[in-house]
Amino acid sequence: MPKSETTFDLSAPAFVAHEGGKVEVQATKPLNDAADLSLLYTPGVADVCLAIAEDPSLSRRFTARHNTVAVITDGTAVLGLGDIGPLAAMPVMEGKAVLFKHFAGVDAIPVCLESGTIDELVETIARLAPSYGGINLEDISAPRCFDIERRLRERLEIPVFHDDQHGTAIVALAGLINACRVIDRQMASLKVVVGGAGAAGVAVTQLLQLAGVQDIVVCDSRGVIGMHRADLVAHKQRLAETTNPNGLTGTLGDALVGADVYVGVSGGTVPEEQIAAMAPGPVIFALANPNPEVHPQIAHKYASVVATGRSDFPNQINNVLAFPGIFRGALDAGGVQISEEMKLAAAWAIADLVEEPRADLIVPPVFQPGVAEAVAAAVQAHAI
Amino acid sequence: MPKSETTFDLSAPAFVAHEGGKVEVQATKPLNDAADLSLLYTPGVADVCLAIAEDPSLSRRFTARHNTVAVITDGTAVLGLGDIGPLAAMPVMEGKAVLFKHFAGVDAIPVCLESGTIDELVETIARLAPSYGGINLEDISAPRCFDIERRLRERLEIPVFHDDQHGTAIVALAGLINACRVIDRQMASLKVVVGGAGAAGVAVTQLLQLAGVQDIVVCDSRGVIGMHRADLVAHKQRLAETTNPNGLTGTLGDALVGADVYVGVSGGTVPEEQIAAMAPGPVIFALANPNPEVHPQIAHKYASVVATGRSDFPNQINNVLAFPGIFRGALDAGGVQISEEMKLAAAWAIADLVEEPRADLIVPPVFQPGVAEAVAAAVQAHAI
Repeated sequence: MPKSETTFDLSAPAFVAHEGGKVEVQATKPLNDAADLSLLYTPGVADVCLAIAEDPSLSRRFTARHNTVAVITDGTAVLGLGDIGPLAAMPVMEGKAVLFKHFAGVDAIPVCLESGTIDELVETIARLAPSYGGINLEDISAPRCFDIERRLRERLEIPVFHDDQHGTAIVALAGLINACRVIDRQMASLKVVVGGAGAAGVAVTQLLQLAGVQDIVVCDSRGVIGMHRADLVAHKQRLAETTNPNGLTGTLGDALVGADVYVGVSGGTVPEEQIAAMAPGPVIFALANPNPEVHPQIAHKYASVVATGRSDFPNQINNVLAFPGIFRGALDAGGVQISEEMKLAAAWAIADLVEEPRADLIVPPVFQPGVAEAVAAAVQAHAI
Repeated sequence: MPKSETTFDLSAPAFVAHEGGKVEVQATKPLNDAADLSLLYTPGVADVCLAIAEDPSLSRRFTARHNTVAVITDGTAVLGLGDIGPLAAMPVMEGKAVLFKHFAGVDAIPVCLESGTIDELVETIARLAPSYGGINLEDISAPRCFDIERRLRERLEIPVFHDDQHGTAIVALAGLINACRVIDRQMASLKVVVGGAGAAGVAVTQLLQLAGVQDIVVCDSRGVIGMHRADLVAHKQRLAETTNPNGLTGTLGDALVGADVYVGVSGGTVPEEQIAAMAPGPVIFALANPNPEVHPQIAHKYASVVATGRSDFPNQINNVLAFPGIFRGALDAGGVQISEEMKLAAAWAIADLVEEPRADLIVPPVFQPGVAEAVAAAVQAHAI
């Protein structure tokens, strides 16, 4: 093998774990002899094809499609790494496929697309859709991701779900539900500041509003989003119209003064004095990965409840608590779209899995048994 | 499950064999605890992504791409069933994935696309290409398949191979090599008639010419293709310019008079009297599936050697003898394009696996061990 030009140490544990890739395709039916071959392939397969041509619903019964989700990216917003392209995005998509199978028995197929315009991506993904039972959009940059998801949901009959938006929102809401139980507060009484107006920030804001939070202020890199801003692109203009009920202006630091909850999904840094200026005993979700907006040690000096996106601190707000069960439920319900009611139900199901919420236990640990099953049941219960 | 509207008996063995589909996605690395998760997914995966972004060749080492082939169709020419659409094509693509894994350890991913214009399909498939190590085009109607394959080969750096063309051609050539050994003839001396000018007919003709056959006449549904025809689309015009050296005109029946070899890839029917009019002891490959152009019992009344596409007669000309090893070799050679030399070498490798060719043994049985390995080695030997 020629020497690589990379500056990374390819003998590090993560590289060893990735050697050869992380997924494979396996047959689920035995192929031992000509008799098997004539059933699984020609001539036997012909009648199965013709039956599906007569009744397309049979594709869910006689192909793997009933259990298959494409994990589709164009590599434009991979983790916090930015636009690294489709080839470099593949390890994340394969990792996601491993999680889908492990936690929910879903067969997930990594699909890494050359990027393009919104039109081109919608067209490509729509043309691919007959191959799958559902589509998990992943790591597609904002604001393109909003239009891409909306147009695919309108056009396709299978579930389309941008996990960076809704997976994050569902688990963050689950965490906030239990944080409220810990500090004995109602959603409707909270002053919430969301730091970040990208994919996750928008979805977190919308889902918290649906769950009853009334006072949310969203900040982007230029500060508080509100009707005073003349520089807003469409999705931020909509935030301006639906959040910030008291017409705040200024910086994130200004917004945090007296706030009860900070949800960071920005990747920036919040100085300690801004945390100190929040209401007494606030809830701090610093979800940027791998570097939280506020280090948990600093957050704990002030906060009642602290959560991050990291596995090495308590209260990991990890999408894997949601997406396997979300798709398991949507597939088992016959491949239905994932509604707002299903997302809310999923968040409550995750929260309720913590029998006695504590400051250091507001979401179940990732490997707690039964999470995907509970989420799937909640999703299915709302599919009619 | 609601009652299906299909007229097929869904309890027949082929349907039972297809229940739930035929493929699944499996993890190749263990995921047992948080430590595994942090290597296979965040945060460990981030360095692997960044290393690939620095050096894209590492995607072959640290993702499954080095072993992955997409089996892509638009469902416009499925088996002999015609344009049944992408959903109904899936059982064939899944079957192909089962064969890829069984015979050559290749991870094949079924992709069934909504059909469209040539431009749209080329664009869609090119945009998908970063996901895979190779592309097996399948069951795409002629003449679109010719332009689609050519343009993708020009545009992409991974192997692109339309199996209905080249897989059929390679195995048919392998059969003809051994048929010549049985009847003690040279390729260059044969008068060959190819019945059918679609994907398989064109590819068989080109590969036989490369292998040394000089006198080939191709017939379509309107008869002999030659310079006298004013009704020819582009790919048939090219056949007119490169075949039929003696300027034959008329019907398939006219062309067969005195011919040594008939290769049927048309799906039509050849009457017994036309077979009787061939040269003494001809070679007859009636490859239409499931109904050969000439029934083997009739063919045997006249022929020295008879082959079909069916598993229930001797001499099955089955693409599965070629495509798994073709892609195994191309992937192992680093994902190179499949050249004409590789196709010829593959055909000779398949032929040479029959130690003592006989009239009823001109190609190895599908389950003979070592076929894919021999084909892969022949392909790799021609990759420089």
